[in-house]
Amino acid sequence: MPARVLMPWADIDLPEGMYARIYDGNGPPPEDVDEIEFYVLPYDRGPVPASLLARMPALKVVQSLSAGVESLLRRVPRGVQLANGHGLHDLSVAEHALALIHASQRELPRWFAQQATGSWAREHTRSLADSRVLLIGYGAIGKAIERQLVAAEALVTRVARTARPVEDVRGIEELPALLPHADIVVLIVPDTPGTRGLLGAAQLAALPDDALIVNVGRGTAIDTAALLAETASGRLRAALDVLDPEPLPGDHPLWRVPGVIITPHVAGGSASFYPRAKRFVAEQLRRFAADAPLLNVVTTVSG
Amino acid sequence: MPARVLMPWADIDLPEGMYARIYDGNGPPPEDVDEIEFYVLPYDRGPVPASLLARMPALKVVQSLSAGVESLLRRVPRGVQLANGHGLHDLSVAEHALALIHASQRELPRWFAQQATGSWAREHTRSLADSRVLLIGYGAIGKAIERQLVAAEALVTRVARTARPVEDVRGIEELPALLPHADIVVLIVPDTPGTRGLLGAAQLAALPDDALIVNVGRGTAIDTAALLAETASGRLRAALDVLDPEPLPGDHPLWRVPGVIITPHVAGGSASFYPRAKRFVAEQLRRFAADAPLLNVVTTVSG
Ligand SMILES: NC(=O)c1ccc[n+]([C@@H]2O[C@H](COP(=O)([O-])OP(=O)(O)OC[C@H]3O[C@@H](n4cnc5c(N)ncnc54)[C@H](OP(=O)(O)O)[C@@H]3O)[C@@H](O)[C@H]2O)c1
Ligand SMILES: NC(=O)c1ccc[n+]([C@@H]2O[C@H](COP(=O)([O-])OP(=O)(O)OC[C@H]3O[C@@H](n4cnc5c(N)ncnc54)[C@H](OP(=O)(O)O)[C@@H]3O)[C@@H](O)[C@H]2O)c1
Repeated sequence: MPARVLMPWADIDLPEGMYARIYDGNGPPPEDVDEIEFYVLPYDRGPVPASLLARMPALKVVQSLSAGVESLLRRVPRGVQLANGHGLHDLSVAEHALALIHASQRELPRWFAQQATGSWAREHTRSLADSRVLLIGYGAIGKAIERQLVAAEALVTRVARTARPVEDVRGIEELPALLPHADIVVLIVPDTPGTRGLLGAAQLAALPDDALIVNVGRGTAIDTAALLAETASGRLRAALDVLDPEPLPGDHPLWRVPGVIITPHVAGGSASFYPRAKRFVAEQLRRFAADAPLLNVVTTVSG
Repeated sequence: MPARVLMPWADIDLPEGMYARIYDGNGPPPEDVDEIEFYVLPYDRGPVPASLLARMPALKVVQSLSAGVESLLRRVPRGVQLANGHGLHDLSVAEHALALIHASQRELPRWFAQQATGSWAREHTRSLADSRVLLIGYGAIGKAIERQLVAAEALVTRVARTARPVEDVRGIEELPALLPHADIVVLIVPDTPGTRGLLGAAQLAALPDDALIVNVGRGTAIDTAALLAETASGRLRAALDVLDPEPLPGDHPLWRVPGVIITPHVAGGSASFYPRAKRFVAEQLRRFAADAPLLNVVTTVSG
């Protein structure tokens, strides 16, 4: 019997002996999924796709296309391999981080408001060039962000969980000493017990006046109430693609703080993701067909 | 008698034998300028600073801090050297170009409008990564833009006045063949008879649907009426820091076309300009004091 695949796209060449059904997360989920062995979850389609897992007794592999799979971990049955989408979003998230930084430094909200009234009033703005950027998180996405920051001649200091002096990466324990010298802080860390509340009231207070905080990782890394206090007073600025909680409630005061830009967790979802995701899934299916180790495996719990 | 300098900043070390007065373009212009030999025009302060030229009989050098000095040329008296600010704005203009591109590709106007209503509605967007960018103008600023585009993994084709195959630069005569393959066109050329109307109705028509036109050079390079037609129909998009005419009248329909972003000629005016401009002026004054050739001289018309 051919291996059964459930995946979001029809335009992928399948290895011999595989048979695919298509489910892109739009519309009702398929009824008969009991023979599916390899499930590529549609990207960014809410909770329904993951709910199918409970109806797949033949399942061997769950391929998520997200880099962060925290919320999926406990839904994957024992004995099933879970692989994530690490690396597929690097460029998409990195360019959104740059979009947020440029928008804040070059005051795009001001120009867009003026555009609505046809006003040509001009002012000089901040720059990204020469800015001291503290990049917290130096993984796949952090490195992609850094390449674009360096091209813009920002001055980057790298921070990760553990110091790696050879790579000039500082350990997170140095954060208190680094914060007072940052014009811009970029957060691109996963949601883990170690990252929750990384920027709380004390850390924010250590930043210089007018510093910009950018978060494209996970919202939990920032204490939202503390950030609200420091931005509402006008002392700090922020540009956030990820929030805590998500969605941010419509009446949350952070939405309306001048100097705060909010986008609704859209950093990973842009055109450049798709060709990379398709190439990656094709490779994973080749490996599965050849009984070779899969890439990006997060957990293999046997029996 | 010491050489007299009129310049916008007090915090520049002067060579021995020079005496400076400060005029930053704010407030009334100084009355007694008849002994000024070296005039550093305040940057981006409207027409008043240049009007002083007519009252400076001792003048030897006019140092503009703009890269484009078209409008100044005919106001500089014969026998006076005019130097421009070529190179001082590269990073500032380049990062504004990137801000405009990211804002368009990642749909910042949509998210900002949603932010005003506290809405978390999500959509996938276009990317800059993988986009085919036609970069028209490959001078100092064009090269700075390219470095940032390449870091974002866009695919850049370089165009200048004359082809330079060794540098992989195409000549402007190839434009008709190149336009149909551009997702994004970036214009960073000066205002000259050769660049006026470079993108007219025919050239715009040659672009694929949904292409984005970005202009950070001079507004005259685009036929505004033709661009209005192609953007108002929804076929093309645009992000413009320079317009024809400038200021764009408040009731001009281009202000309100969806898919068009307008900023009021602010690309060159950002924080990163100032330290570069001050270092440059200090160097020019050293050269003047030492009777050495000045940098960036645009015209020397001997008496
Ligand atoms: N906004 C979006 O749409 C979007 C899209 C995709 C991904 N994301 C988020 O971005 C996160 C990062 O993605 P990635 O691909 O770059 O992950 P990655 O390659 O695993 O890198 C994670 C980085 O975070 C650092 N880190 C982990 N815990 C830390 C701590 N307690 N303090 C300081 N640094 C810590 C790691 O340090 P070490 O190097 O020392 O291990 C590493 O440098 C994902 O986990 C996901 O949550 C968001
Ligand atoms: N928006 C703003 O705030 C702002 C700020 C600063 C400057 N600017 C504008 O940006 C312009 C460019 O600055 P830059 O420092 O990069 O100047 P640059 O170093 O002199 O480079 C100009 C480039 O334009 C090309 N070019 C000239 N005429 C052309 C034509 N007819 N067709 C195609 N390409 C042509 C040149 O081609 P070759 O290489 O073949 O000579 C060169 O590559 C300035 O002149 C100024 O008007 C705008």
